[in-house]
Amino acid sequence: MTTQAAELTAATAARASVGDMVGQVEKRMRRLIDEERARWSDVCRGAAVVPVDEVARLVEAGGKRLRPMFCVTGYLAAGGAADDKTIIDAAAALEFLHAFALIHDDVLDDSPLRRGIATVHVRHASDHATRGWRGESRRYGEGVAILAGDLAHVYADRLAAGIPRRAREIWGDLRTEMIVGQFVDIAAAAEFTADPALARWIALCKSGRYTIHRPLQLGAAIAGRADLAPAFERYGAAVGEAFQLRDDLLGAFGDSRRTGKPIGLDLAQHKVTLLIAMAIEADGGIGGLLLSQPDGGADPARLRAALDRLDTPNQVERRIEFLVEEARTAIAVAPLDSCWRDELAEMACQVAFRAR
Amino acid sequence: MTTQAAELTAATAARASVGDMVGQVEKRMRRLIDEERARWSDVCRGAAVVPVDEVARLVEAGGKRLRPMFCVTGYLAAGGAADDKTIIDAAAALEFLHAFALIHDDVLDDSPLRRGIATVHVRHASDHATRGWRGESRRYGEGVAILAGDLAHVYADRLAAGIPRRAREIWGDLRTEMIVGQFVDIAAAAEFTADPALARWIALCKSGRYTIHRPLQLGAAIAGRADLAPAFERYGAAVGEAFQLRDDLLGAFGDSRRTGKPIGLDLAQHKVTLLIAMAIEADGGIGGLLLSQPDGGADPARLRAALDRLDTPNQVERRIEFLVEEARTAIAVAPLDSCWRDELAEMACQVAFRAR
Repeated sequence: MTTQAAELTAATAARASVGDMVGQVEKRMRRLIDEERARWSDVCRGAAVVPVDEVARLVEAGGKRLRPMFCVTGYLAAGGAADDKTIIDAAAALEFLHAFALIHDDVLDDSPLRRGIATVHVRHASDHATRGWRGESRRYGEGVAILAGDLAHVYADRLAAGIPRRAREIWGDLRTEMIVGQFVDIAAAAEFTADPALARWIALCKSGRYTIHRPLQLGAAIAGRADLAPAFERYGAAVGEAFQLRDDLLGAFGDSRRTGKPIGLDLAQHKVTLLIAMAIEADGGIGGLLLSQPDGGADPARLRAALDRLDTPNQVERRIEFLVEEARTAIAVAPLDSCWRDELAEMACQVAFRAR
Repeated sequence: MTTQAAELTAATAARASVGDMVGQVEKRMRRLIDEERARWSDVCRGAAVVPVDEVARLVEAGGKRLRPMFCVTGYLAAGGAADDKTIIDAAAALEFLHAFALIHDDVLDDSPLRRGIATVHVRHASDHATRGWRGESRRYGEGVAILAGDLAHVYADRLAAGIPRRAREIWGDLRTEMIVGQFVDIAAAAEFTADPALARWIALCKSGRYTIHRPLQLGAAIAGRADLAPAFERYGAAVGEAFQLRDDLLGAFGDSRRTGKPIGLDLAQHKVTLLIAMAIEADGGIGGLLLSQPDGGADPARLRAALDRLDTPNQVERRIEFLVEEARTAIAVAPLDSCWRDELAEMACQVAFRAR
């Protein structure tokens, strides 16, 4: 076998082992949901199982499973054994944690749609109104979503219970950063702080660390490798920014049928996304345009036209290309087998150039 | 020294060691808050520290610290060593968990007051309005409360990171039961299910297990004693019901200046509390009285008068006395030193006959 052929085989094997483990993660999530349904479905004539069903509905509706994928990749790249149950649990924990973050985030943003289905708070507010129950429908729907999110958080943490001590610190940091990042995000939108540096910090916190860097580092820590952390941090910062910029492009110009999320919501809610931050850096006037909108929300169509005039979408595409190169460089010097460098470079492209 | 004097000395020593450890728990909570404030106060020109401050404000406003107290008592009664740091962390974790539960619960109930201060969501909605920020004030205030609660949950879990494997299962169960119990509580109020058996189950879940049984069992498990679980479960069920009945009495007839909570809120929100459940068992007509109220909420004064006519407060007092005896019996046969039996009997009285 030539060197090139051997490398190709190694890359294929690496890809297959990530895929196999992500498949095991799906089964693990399903098993926890089944156990919890069995535990609660006969309690209080079926009422107790409702929040379990809400968590299940979101998890089963799909999603990109990016965090489990980065977690098992970090683990395998660090030399972790393929038959370890702890890494499967940890990766499943990250996906339940993401369900928790999404359910609460959708209340914060009053978003109607997630993964192509109505969000928890919207569906239960509507149920409450239809059934003519007591109290306020909005408060009830949001209450169900708060508790369903809390339950997903507990499931995440129960799955993470067996990870080693060093990994537990990362698990704590990941969650703390994610929640503080969320807060700064809503505060910046409320104050309308048109500050590109702040937007970049929020994106680093919410995407770079939460989606890429910490899952990779968590996987590597479970395999007992702390030395990979700096390379994963630099890679995560670059891929995370690319991920966020793609998210912003899809959120402003994308197709709701493909993303499963509403289009234009960030623009309407005065979010200084990374995309808007880049536009402000190119022309401060765009900040004025956002500010000049009445409090009911900015007009997405008018903003999109302004962004097009500034050539922002193309500039964002070029920035994404630069960030993918930066990620490749970060990983090129890391103490990893070449097949894992290739795999991580490929994953950076998938994240940066995705269509949903 | 006479036997009686020796027993008195042992009881005093037991009480003192619980008090000492609860003091250490306070310091541990303070240390985590200080570390988190230092970590976030310079980030984003002070914005990132806001949710940390919200958690701190609630913890610092006091509270009865019942869950840490039961946790260290379970640990010491089970023979745990006085100089162990894990038990202090676990007890502090329970108090942060309680802060999380209260912050979210106050959004669910739209309660204006907690521990004598304005609740998180009310204060931040008001701030938002005063400053004329973008978006809806109510959503912003509730968003801050959702995230502050989530952060308190993460702090709780970070503190619980070092507990042994068997204790971690209890930590998972405790949180799952608490959240499912909260959901059944709001669902029963919305549907207005005037079902005393359901009210009793909710109270067992939210008070018996969450406040008494699980904290005791957690402490005992950290000391390596699983054999005490059945006695603690029976004791917890009795003391928990007594705790909840006292809570209901104080909530319906108490003094807001002493409880730090609004009076009559449960009645106005159609909650079939244990108190109401007992009244329904005595006279089904009270259920009709609750149901007959317009959707804006039941009239607390009219309900109080009806409860007085049924002699419900006195019946509840007698039930509380019975439950305290039941708790003493449960603990009398447990394999514990007599000083710990006395201490647990005394704690049952404190919880059952408290004035706030």
